[in-house]
Amino acid sequence: MTSSNAAESAALLMTGNRNALSRAITLIESSLPEHQETAHDILDRCLGDRTATLRIGITGSPGAGKSTLIESLGIELLKDPANRLAVLTIDPSSERSGGSILGDKARMEKLAGRKDVFIRPSPSSGHLGGTSPRTHEAILLCEAAGYNVVIVETVGVGQSEISIESMVDYVLLLLLPGSGDELQGIKRGIMEIADGIAVSKIDGVPEKSVQFSKAACESALNLLPKKHPVWSPHVILTSSVTGQGIDMVWDNIQEFAHTLRANNIFEENRRKQLHRLFCAQVEMQLRQTFYNHPEIRSSFAEIAAGVEKMNMSPFTGAKKLVEQVIRYPR
Amino acid sequence: MTSSNAAESAALLMTGNRNALSRAITLIESSLPEHQETAHDILDRCLGDRTATLRIGITGSPGAGKSTLIESLGIELLKDPANRLAVLTIDPSSERSGGSILGDKARMEKLAGRKDVFIRPSPSSGHLGGTSPRTHEAILLCEAAGYNVVIVETVGVGQSEISIESMVDYVLLLLLPGSGDELQGIKRGIMEIADGIAVSKIDGVPEKSVQFSKAACESALNLLPKKHPVWSPHVILTSSVTGQGIDMVWDNIQEFAHTLRANNIFEENRRKQLHRLFCAQVEMQLRQTFYNHPEIRSSFAEIAAGVEKMNMSPFTGAKKLVEQVIRYPR
Repeated sequence: MTSSNAAESAALLMTGNRNALSRAITLIESSLPEHQETAHDILDRCLGDRTATLRIGITGSPGAGKSTLIESLGIELLKDPANRLAVLTIDPSSERSGGSILGDKARMEKLAGRKDVFIRPSPSSGHLGGTSPRTHEAILLCEAAGYNVVIVETVGVGQSEISIESMVDYVLLLLLPGSGDELQGIKRGIMEIADGIAVSKIDGVPEKSVQFSKAACESALNLLPKKHPVWSPHVILTSSVTGQGIDMVWDNIQEFAHTLRANNIFEENRRKQLHRLFCAQVEMQLRQTFYNHPEIRSSFAEIAAGVEKMNMSPFTGAKKLVEQVIRYPR
Repeated sequence: MTSSNAAESAALLMTGNRNALSRAITLIESSLPEHQETAHDILDRCLGDRTATLRIGITGSPGAGKSTLIESLGIELLKDPANRLAVLTIDPSSERSGGSILGDKARMEKLAGRKDVFIRPSPSSGHLGGTSPRTHEAILLCEAAGYNVVIVETVGVGQSEISIESMVDYVLLLLLPGSGDELQGIKRGIMEIADGIAVSKIDGVPEKSVQFSKAACESALNLLPKKHPVWSPHVILTSSVTGQGIDMVWDNIQEFAHTLRANNIFEENRRKQLHRLFCAQVEMQLRQTFYNHPEIRSSFAEIAAGVEKMNMSPFTGAKKLVEQVIRYPR
């Protein structure tokens, strides 16, 4: 694809064309260098101030009801005709731990048919929990296409939460009601990054258990350091079956955005996130450019063999290799 | 230090001079580039085939009795006058989680006075559990100085076990006797890399608890994949107070080495470990050389600001930066 094609694609994407958006995300996901190049040529043309948008991360163990909550929350927020919603979900085929066999569009059928909704499996590329720098770029593309609310679904299984935190404004943690023991299994790290907690699927659960879970969450939150000095996470009881609490979740997210904007934290947070993405990209491209360099490709095996034969230390071998392509000016 | 000084230091180190060994490890630990350079100049001169040596990693939670076991094991193996022992311990001052306030030499007083023993806090440099590529290099230096058995102590607290596995031949996991519940707290990963398990400090513990622990360990081991196809880890009951089991631990380590050597796995494992150290060094030096490059230092902030102002995507900014110093031949 030539540069003028990238310009066309970017222009089309910015009119809100769904196919153009889909194709651009596919290019972002591709591991082919020429696709990456085109994708970022498009992205460069779509950049702009998007601080009026909202990026929401939804995390929780498999079975916590993330898909149904996203569906209910989506319907709630689309009551305002000014809103357009993009949902980046975990690709069920590429993630062992998460997602339905039926596929995301089938899971969220009430959203899938709507013109103001764009649903797309998130480019996971092997990253834990499904988020990666590519997901962050997909968010930017969705916003360029006019989606002012972007929901990213991720499985809270470990390192992934840190990743989701680095690309969304608000992190919602879903927990199933229970005896409070469930908090034992939830890592401290995931509670620390939550801006709100939804105790989900409360329909049919005894009121006592539900209240116990809420109290347990609230006392756990009290023990943790604050993520943002101006915000205390709420615990909201929800049911996607009865609809209970869904409006409160949306209200909470809006209140969060309002509070952080009023304190200039929202924009500052976005700036920091972009900086982190930049640093991650520098690392990635440094490694990629280095290991694909013709000189490195032709000498790596020989130097590695010399190290393994004890002809030189690993340090010296590494130095020899790196100095082949990065030289300081004299 | 000039290159001829490095030659002298290396020659002195190889006569078994403890001060020369200490100084070389100090240079390895240093973050100053010129120290690193000298250290690796020395290391390059000391390399050679050391497959006759034995590298033992000892891991376990704080309080599991690692220091006392190392002391007892050291005395046991030094009954053979052909053995010389180096112990790389976690530096108590630099590790939050492990080590005694008294310092390592005070902890291992029965070993500290001996001429055939070298004790040294392991260069941890902030790595979890205290092991790092630098620890691996310290092992190589100890061997060059004639220590044919090297024990590395590490705290089994998380990611660190993976690191210890990459630089020793045999990993001994220490567990305290109990109800079997203690295995719950032990991560699967740490059991997977163990070549032997010592249920430690069994003196004064009811025989029933001790046997229960042993059985629990054995059944846990049975559920795990084998680390080496030719070796099944043993569970050995030990007490550094009564001396029980210490000889069995040493016998087990020797049997392990014999079995793996007979199957050509020992040398192959060493070769793989060296390759991994080389790859880690390449990554480290690539990053270090890149970020310290004068052109990168002078333009990083400007490009980062451009990205944060949305003048270009993080990808494009990163590309611009990397291409300043790594260029492919035309």
